[in-house]
Amino acid sequence: MKLVTRSLALASLSALTLATAQAETIETRWADVDVETVAEGLNHPWGLAFLNDGRMLVTERAGTMRIIEADGTHGEAISGLPEIKVMRQGGLFDVKLSPNYSSDSLIYFSYSEPESEGSEITSTAVARARLEDNALHDLEVIFSQYPKEEGGRHYGGRLTFSDDGEYLFIGLGDRGHRQDDAQTLDKHTGKLVRIHPDGSVPEDNPYVNEEGALEEIWSYGHRNIQGMDIQPSTGHLWAVEHGPQGGDELNRPQSGHNYGWPVITHGEQYGGGEVGIGFKKDDMELPVWHWTPSIAVSGMVFYDGNQFPAWQGNVLATGLRGQQVARLEIDGDHVIHQETLELGQRIRQVQVGPEGYIYLLTDNADGKVLRLSPAE
Amino acid sequence: MKLVTRSLALASLSALTLATAQAETIETRWADVDVETVAEGLNHPWGLAFLNDGRMLVTERAGTMRIIEADGTHGEAISGLPEIKVMRQGGLFDVKLSPNYSSDSLIYFSYSEPESEGSEITSTAVARARLEDNALHDLEVIFSQYPKEEGGRHYGGRLTFSDDGEYLFIGLGDRGHRQDDAQTLDKHTGKLVRIHPDGSVPEDNPYVNEEGALEEIWSYGHRNIQGMDIQPSTGHLWAVEHGPQGGDELNRPQSGHNYGWPVITHGEQYGGGEVGIGFKKDDMELPVWHWTPSIAVSGMVFYDGNQFPAWQGNVLATGLRGQQVARLEIDGDHVIHQETLELGQRIRQVQVGPEGYIYLLTDNADGKVLRLSPAE
Ligand SMILES: [Ca+2]
Ligand SMILES: [Ca+2]
Ligand SMILES: [Ca+2]
Ligand SMILES: [Ca+2]
Repeated sequence: MKLVTRSLALASLSALTLATAQAETIETRWADVDVETVAEGLNHPWGLAFLNDGRMLVTERAGTMRIIEADGTHGEAISGLPEIKVMRQGGLFDVKLSPNYSSDSLIYFSYSEPESEGSEITSTAVARARLEDNALHDLEVIFSQYPKEEGGRHYGGRLTFSDDGEYLFIGLGDRGHRQDDAQTLDKHTGKLVRIHPDGSVPEDNPYVNEEGALEEIWSYGHRNIQGMDIQPSTGHLWAVEHGPQGGDELNRPQSGHNYGWPVITHGEQYGGGEVGIGFKKDDMELPVWHWTPSIAVSGMVFYDGNQFPAWQGNVLATGLRGQQVARLEIDGDHVIHQETLELGQRIRQVQVGPEGYIYLLTDNADGKVLRLSPAE
Repeated sequence: MKLVTRSLALASLSALTLATAQAETIETRWADVDVETVAEGLNHPWGLAFLNDGRMLVTERAGTMRIIEADGTHGEAISGLPEIKVMRQGGLFDVKLSPNYSSDSLIYFSYSEPESEGSEITSTAVARARLEDNALHDLEVIFSQYPKEEGGRHYGGRLTFSDDGEYLFIGLGDRGHRQDDAQTLDKHTGKLVRIHPDGSVPEDNPYVNEEGALEEIWSYGHRNIQGMDIQPSTGHLWAVEHGPQGGDELNRPQSGHNYGWPVITHGEQYGGGEVGIGFKKDDMELPVWHWTPSIAVSGMVFYDGNQFPAWQGNVLATGLRGQQVARLEIDGDHVIHQETLELGQRIRQVQVGPEGYIYLLTDNADGKVLRLSPAE
C-alpha cells in the first residue's frame, strides 16, 4: 500500500484552500482510494448515522449530537439529550436510526448514564427519542446495564439492529475492574445484549428461563465490544472487541456462547487454557480473527456498497492506535485474507453511506468525517 | 517485529570470525528469535531432511544432494542420482527420509526427469534409493508426471508422507503453459498426487474407478504446489501454492476436491467466478488463506517442537520474494492470525529439527541453512 498526496486544486488557489481541497490517495490491491475530509471540528466523534436526505447524524463523546449538512457544515447541538456522565472513556456513544425512521422519526443512542446527577457510578444505557427540529422528544430509556459501576472504562456502547428490525443488539464491556463478571450471568457486565426496540426481552433469548441469569443476555465473556454489524449475506451478527494488550478480536457472537474473557485471550496471557498459554479452553469460542499486537480496534462494518465492487462482503474494521482500516475477506465464518489501509489518524468508526462511499470518524478533539471513494 | 543485530563474539575476534559468529535477533510477539547460519555455500538449496545422527541431507536445485555434518561442513556430492534436467525452475527438488529409514535406509526425492538424455521435455518425477557411504543404491523411479512437457516452469516438487507412512503425497504444478490441464483428470499436470511409497496406487484414491482419469490423482486445480505438511493434531495434509500475480494460497487438499486453478484465483483476475471478479465458484474450494500481493510462497511446515511453545500447531510458510516466514495461527481448518518474521533473504523451505529448532534454506547461489532458536 502506497500513499500518494494528490492535489485536486489549481495551483493558483491559496494555501488554506489547498489544504482542504487536497485528497490523499491510498493505493490498494483492488482499488486506488481517495481520502477526503467532508466535515471537521467534531469533538471525538463516536457514532455516525445517515439521515435519508444527505445529512448525517454524529455523536461526540463529550455528550453532544449534531446534524451535519450535505455540505459538511454543522450548527447547534441537538437538544433534549438525557444527563450523560462524561468521564475518561465515558460519554455519548453510538447512534442508529430506527428501522422505521421514515415513519416514526425515532433515533436510538447509547451513553454513560449516572446513578444520580453528577454521580461517577454509571451504566451503559440506551435511549430512544423522536428527532424533530434539531431536538429530541419523548425520550425513553430502553436499557440500562445492571449493575451500575464505578470507573470510567470499557463501556462498550455499539448498537446494531437485526436486518428485520425486530432486535437491537447492544455491545457492552467489563467496565475495566469487573473482568470476572464477564463470566457470570447475573450481571450485564462483559455481555452482548439483545432486546426488542421497545426494550422488551425476546422470548427466544438464551437465558430467559434460567434462574439467576439476566434475560437480556445474548452472549458473554466479552471484554469491551467496540464495533458490530450484520453480515449482509447471512443476517449474522459480527462484533469486534478490545483485547487486554494485544488480542483484539473479531467474533461471530451466537446465542448463549462464551467468548472467553477473562479466561482465554490472545493478548498478554491471563491464565487458564489448554496449552498452558491461555489461548483455548473447551466450551469457549476462539475469535474468528485477532490482531496481536493490538490495533485498538474500534468500529466495524460489512462493506455492501457499489463503489468498491471487489470489497463486497468484506469486513472493514477500524483501529485507534493502529490508525487504519483493516479489510478482511470472509469465507463462511472465516477470514481468508487481510489488507491494511494506513490512514495515519486514529479511526473510531466506519460506516457505508447510501451511495456506497465509506465514511470514517477520526478520534480527535478536532475530529473529522473522512470519505473514501474510488480514485478517478 | 524489530530486527536487532547482536554480537555473540568478543570484540577481539577477527572481522571474518565476527561475520559468522553474529546472530540476528528478531523480536516477535511471543518469542525473541535468534537467527544463526549453520551451513553455507549451497547452490540454491531446495529440500532438507534430518538424518538421525545430527546430520542433514540437503538438495541443491543444480542437481546435487549433500550431507551436511553436525558442524556445518559438507563435502562431495552424493553419487548415484539419475539424470536430472536442470533448466530454469527445474532440477533437483525435495528430499524425504523413508518412514522406515532406520531399517531400510531409503530416501525419496523429486526432480526434473528428461524424456531422453539432454531432452528439454520433462516430467516431475519421484525416485527412491538406499543411501549408503555417500552414494545412492538400487535407484527406483516410483512416479513420473504424465505427460512430459516442454518449458521450465511450475514443476511443483514437494513430498510429504502421511503420519502412518502408508502414503506419499506429491505436489505438482501446471508447467506454466498448461494451465487448463489443471482442471482435467487425464493428466497429472496441476494435480496433487497420492501413492504408496512403492509407487502403487491406493485403492481409496478418488479416481481409481473413474474411466479416463489418472488414478494417482488426489486433488486438482493446483497452479504450483511449493510446500506441504501434515497437521500434527489431525493428520490432515495442508499445502501452499504460488498464485499468478498475487493470490498465493494455503489449502487443505481433500480427496477429489477442486482447488480452482485456473478458473478462480485471488491473484490478478482470470475470468469466471460468481461476482464478476473470479474469486469464487460453486464446487471449487476457496483457499484457507491467501497472500495478496504474493510473497512467492515456497515451503511450509507445522511447528511441533518444544523450543517455541507459543507456536505449537502454527503453520510456518516461507516466502521467496516476501523474504519472510509467515506464522499462521490455526483454529480448526482456519487461520485466525498472521505474524510475519522478516528475514531479509529469499527463503525456500522451512523444517523443524529433532530438537525443535526451526531450519530455513535461503534461495541463493551461495545458499545457507539458517537456524531459529529462542534468544537467551
Ligand atoms: Ca475472546
Ligand atoms: Ca450494513
Ligand atoms: Ca486455488
Ligand atoms: Ca511435522
